[in-house]
Amino acid sequence: MSAGDTYLTEIREQPEALRRLLAHAGELEAVAGYLQERSQGVVRLVGHGSSNNAAAYGVYAFGLLADWAAVRASMSLAVYYGADRVFEQVPVIAVSQSGQTPDVVSYVERARERGAPTVALTNDEDSELGSAAELVVGLRAGREAAVAATKTYTNQLAALALVAGYLGGRGNEVVEALAGVAERTEAALPELQASAARLAVPFTFVGRMLVIGRGVEYATACEIALKLTETCRVAAEPMTTTALAHGPVAALDPLFPVWAIATADPVLPTVQAAVARVRETGAAIVASGSAAERLDGATYYLPTPASPLEVLSPLLSVLPGQLFSYGLALAKGFDPDRPEGLTKITRAP
Amino acid sequence: MSAGDTYLTEIREQPEALRRLLAHAGELEAVAGYLQERSQGVVRLVGHGSSNNAAAYGVYAFGLLADWAAVRASMSLAVYYGADRVFEQVPVIAVSQSGQTPDVVSYVERARERGAPTVALTNDEDSELGSAAELVVGLRAGREAAVAATKTYTNQLAALALVAGYLGGRGNEVVEALAGVAERTEAALPELQASAARLAVPFTFVGRMLVIGRGVEYATACEIALKLTETCRVAAEPMTTTALAHGPVAALDPLFPVWAIATADPVLPTVQAAVARVRETGAAIVASGSAAERLDGATYYLPTPASPLEVLSPLLSVLPGQLFSYGLALAKGFDPDRPEGLTKITRAP
Repeated sequence: MSAGDTYLTEIREQPEALRRLLAHAGELEAVAGYLQERSQGVVRLVGHGSSNNAAAYGVYAFGLLADWAAVRASMSLAVYYGADRVFEQVPVIAVSQSGQTPDVVSYVERARERGAPTVALTNDEDSELGSAAELVVGLRAGREAAVAATKTYTNQLAALALVAGYLGGRGNEVVEALAGVAERTEAALPELQASAARLAVPFTFVGRMLVIGRGVEYATACEIALKLTETCRVAAEPMTTTALAHGPVAALDPLFPVWAIATADPVLPTVQAAVARVRETGAAIVASGSAAERLDGATYYLPTPASPLEVLSPLLSVLPGQLFSYGLALAKGFDPDRPEGLTKITRAP
Repeated sequence: MSAGDTYLTEIREQPEALRRLLAHAGELEAVAGYLQERSQGVVRLVGHGSSNNAAAYGVYAFGLLADWAAVRASMSLAVYYGADRVFEQVPVIAVSQSGQTPDVVSYVERARERGAPTVALTNDEDSELGSAAELVVGLRAGREAAVAATKTYTNQLAALALVAGYLGGRGNEVVEALAGVAERTEAALPELQASAARLAVPFTFVGRMLVIGRGVEYATACEIALKLTETCRVAAEPMTTTALAHGPVAALDPLFPVWAIATADPVLPTVQAAVARVRETGAAIVASGSAAERLDGATYYLPTPASPLEVLSPLLSVLPGQLFSYGLALAKGFDPDRPEGLTKITRAP
């Protein structure tokens, strides 16, 4: 295989990976039952890297599908400072592709020792994290060999949405909608791959970007920025549309492109307002997401299909970012499979 | 006055502003009493921009000084999606320099309507936010005219630390330690100003940076990155030391400098490990904070005095970043008082 084949193959495997997870949706229903018995509607989410981006999505999945409060817990407060008494009985859902991230494992071990219910969502059920948590659900993405996460990330989103869906009595609805997402992903991939690759070419010498989104799509902004940073060595910073207005908009100019993610949901007006501000700076704008065409005056458009269920749109809106990062890495002469200085399992404290 | 005089003046006014707040510490003691009667040890924090960075600090101040859980609530989940039932009785502390940030005002109005205790920490008690919240405490930073926040930010940190200190029965200790911080700030400013200005010169053509910190200093990383972005138009992204290892380290090279903040506290080993990874990439490293000299092999050192109380170190460690951003803006030919495209009050949704 030539450079980047693994990364591209894994991006393309996402519908298949999602269907594999859906075939075991019952395990996520069991997680919901386990949480329901042990919580008053609050859950702690922890993860690092892409898994932390999935946790950012989890806040919205739990809020919108279940009316539960998902709190992104500070791992350092617990693991390093030893201070997290108030929520110590609140269930933990730990998200990790490898199941070997040291902080996450320590956090779960500590929580379990103190009597908290613990759930691990990981692609390796036999990992340290798999042993540490009381309940373990495999992400079933299949082996992910490229360093940058793709299909494990989307399966993390799906797993969180399924748990939240079952908690909210909408499990079947989420299962069906996710099957629709798999179908739409499959149908959209060939054209998206071609358009993202074409669009990447003029970005060959770009060194910095902002990626903006809000609400459910804030996680997508974080994940696309991370793909661009790790595979293309672009300083790509994610932020909410509102954070942009509170300072960073001042840094923009025509050589500082902005990627904006728009979905037809209640936060769309904030994305439109932010894009209007960006336009005044002369910065090039990539409009993406299912409501991309509602961002007036963007330089480039990379629309995605609408999701059958609004809250699941991040599974589709991350695709152009993944494919763009693949195309851009090649345009820049990098190997998208193996970014320099990274390994698949991050053991950093 | 010439360009940047206001920004510099306000940076230098921080000890004075802090003492003004301390003279009214009783108001923050009253906030603690109000919260104690109305909560089981949980509080919601909201803010945008620098105030959001202060909220990031609040998580640690409340955790470490009071063993309370401070949750950074999603404003979009409540204000735009209308979904935040679980915590709707949990007290809210809203942080805003101007008291006019639309989301923050809406969030507090909505929370109060639903019966939640509400507190505003703002530099303008007569603002919309001041009217919306049940309890209002003025930050007493004095008029802040430069667009980029400095003395209002450090007074926000102090106000949060005071509330947390009183909640934890350590109010007097925090008051005394903050008085010590004011003294040490005053003593350190002249030399810091000179060294930060000197150090800024070689960064004149830098377009991107990372700023890393963890635990209590994560807020400092966010705030320094924001100063660099808004006043110097540098694409400066803040991240935790661990997030760096999960991908972004791959983007570094000798032209992509990293600013690292180190305090002698339990997370120091994670900062040291991250800096060791950065060193391998050849990126220039600015080591800052009171434990700067414990980051081996940095390119530049900008140490700060130790804080009398560890958890208050962010009030001191932000100073070199503020002063560096002042020096760098001048070196780049920008007016640090009035970054292009920004206004003092951000009304963006």
